[in-house]
Amino acid sequence: MEFRKDYVLDRWVVISAGRAKRKHEYVEKVQKKKGVCFFCPGNEEMTPPEIGRIAKGKSWLIRWFPNKFPAVQREGVPEFLTDPYIHGDAFGSHEVVAETPDHDKQLWDLPVKHISQLLAVWASRVQDLEKNDGVKYVVVFKNHGEAAGCSLIHSHTQIATLDFVPPAVVEEARAAVKNCRCAYCRIIRHERKSPRFIFENKGFIVLAPYASRFNYEVWIFSKKHLRTFADFAQDDYEQCAEALAGVLRKLKKLNLDYNFWLHYSPKGRDLHFHIEVAPRRAPWAGFEYSSGVIINAVPPEEAAKFYRK
Amino acid sequence: MEFRKDYVLDRWVVISAGRAKRKHEYVEKVQKKKGVCFFCPGNEEMTPPEIGRIAKGKSWLIRWFPNKFPAVQREGVPEFLTDPYIHGDAFGSHEVVAETPDHDKQLWDLPVKHISQLLAVWASRVQDLEKNDGVKYVVVFKNHGEAAGCSLIHSHTQIATLDFVPPAVVEEARAAVKNCRCAYCRIIRHERKSPRFIFENKGFIVLAPYASRFNYEVWIFSKKHLRTFADFAQDDYEQCAEALAGVLRKLKKLNLDYNFWLHYSPKGRDLHFHIEVAPRRAPWAGFEYSSGVIINAVPPEEAAKFYRK
Repeated sequence: MEFRKDYVLDRWVVISAGRAKRKHEYVEKVQKKKGVCFFCPGNEEMTPPEIGRIAKGKSWLIRWFPNKFPAVQREGVPEFLTDPYIHGDAFGSHEVVAETPDHDKQLWDLPVKHISQLLAVWASRVQDLEKNDGVKYVVVFKNHGEAAGCSLIHSHTQIATLDFVPPAVVEEARAAVKNCRCAYCRIIRHERKSPRFIFENKGFIVLAPYASRFNYEVWIFSKKHLRTFADFAQDDYEQCAEALAGVLRKLKKLNLDYNFWLHYSPKGRDLHFHIEVAPRRAPWAGFEYSSGVIINAVPPEEAAKFYRK
Repeated sequence: MEFRKDYVLDRWVVISAGRAKRKHEYVEKVQKKKGVCFFCPGNEEMTPPEIGRIAKGKSWLIRWFPNKFPAVQREGVPEFLTDPYIHGDAFGSHEVVAETPDHDKQLWDLPVKHISQLLAVWASRVQDLEKNDGVKYVVVFKNHGEAAGCSLIHSHTQIATLDFVPPAVVEEARAAVKNCRCAYCRIIRHERKSPRFIFENKGFIVLAPYASRFNYEVWIFSKKHLRTFADFAQDDYEQCAEALAGVLRKLKKLNLDYNFWLHYSPKGRDLHFHIEVAPRRAPWAGFEYSSGVIINAVPPEEAAKFYRK
């Protein structure tokens, strides 16, 4: 497994041939029966050794373990070489969080309290993994459904570490503090009164971003300038979970595949904590990849209206 | 229709609600019969008024006309406003090129000579459209198949103008001339002897890029430093068509959906002419969108081996 940088652009890939070997329930058109799902209770020996769990009696409510087909691994060294192009070992960890023991439930079916516990699991994994040598950022993301690149149906999140701060996070952190103040704090205040506002509770606010790149895209921001999970109070987990649950329940009505991911401050930089939710309704095509300009046929103001209903 | 820039990032979208109304043969799961395909000979009155054609008897070999559901249009003004976010009318033209009269042929089925004529059509459209007020770049792209965002099955290319040089092209042009020489001229010389080399003829070279972002991604470069179609000799069309045809015939064997697009020098900048071919086998997922780092399970060296066979 190897990180490679583009010849000239600040554009990175992981060449990871092992990922091709993973099971793909959607491609195989085989809905796994409970008995053979790797992530179901009773099949714990089918995953790599467990890292942790939230126990429930003899079983568990949430369980996490290494990804059997990782995109990055803790082998080699967290360094980059040039000969003649920039590359390095794809050094990192890649874990899976089984979000529920119930094979027939998806994240959008789970109660707010359960999602709040899941957020706390992500937080604890991010904080533990950040202590490891060479970890510069921990990527937390969810793929739901075939169009969103999901391969196993049992509801799960993924957590991967990188030995560099990824370009998307660098760019955002750089742009957000341009005037020595947090741009997102200002944007939240403004968007709260805009037709793109969706929901708020004491701690979090939900909006459809002005330049949405995905149909029905949503951003969830903490109202206070929380930088990372380390700034979260117990309340914040519950408020954030309520905001996320509300968005996912709406997505369930549209039955849309989706991704979401966390963006927060890398060590030594300042980026306002938020979650970006990207429904996968219309694939990016030649125009988008060619130009970097995304065509979106659903105005965010319309999307917000749908979510507010 | 409106261009919008992200709150803080140099990231652009077109909000284009009208696009939602277009027919989508894949989504509707209706393979159009010849009689009702908008792009078939005999149905010319179903498209907006023809712009041009390569005639063949009373009918045509290639035909081009405005897109009925454009992403951009020549209404409003090619200007940007800030109130408080940057936006402007989505000012531009959007055209369709029906590549063949034959509904049952795709581009990968067409002879090299036909593809060479198609390239000349693109060249003439780019050069004509560049003369229009406010046109800063002409995007030429192809969507083949549902996973590649194609909506109508009859084989076609699309051509759209923008009143700004799109970020993807700006970045490439900026990076390519960093040391006052063309980086791509150097890269081609190096990659010609690498395991990523696929094919060359007198005028063009085909390679699998070192940091491929798509499974089986391919780049086709002119061997001379051609900047735009204006630098093409008659020979170059044929050589380029031979290179492109070779790649597409291989993709047909894998039956992969794909996009491709042209990148070339915008006015006043220097970017080595090339075509990027992006097969759409594995969708980008949460890791990719979150980090900007793309996981690719097919090493470009393997992809090149497949294409060379």
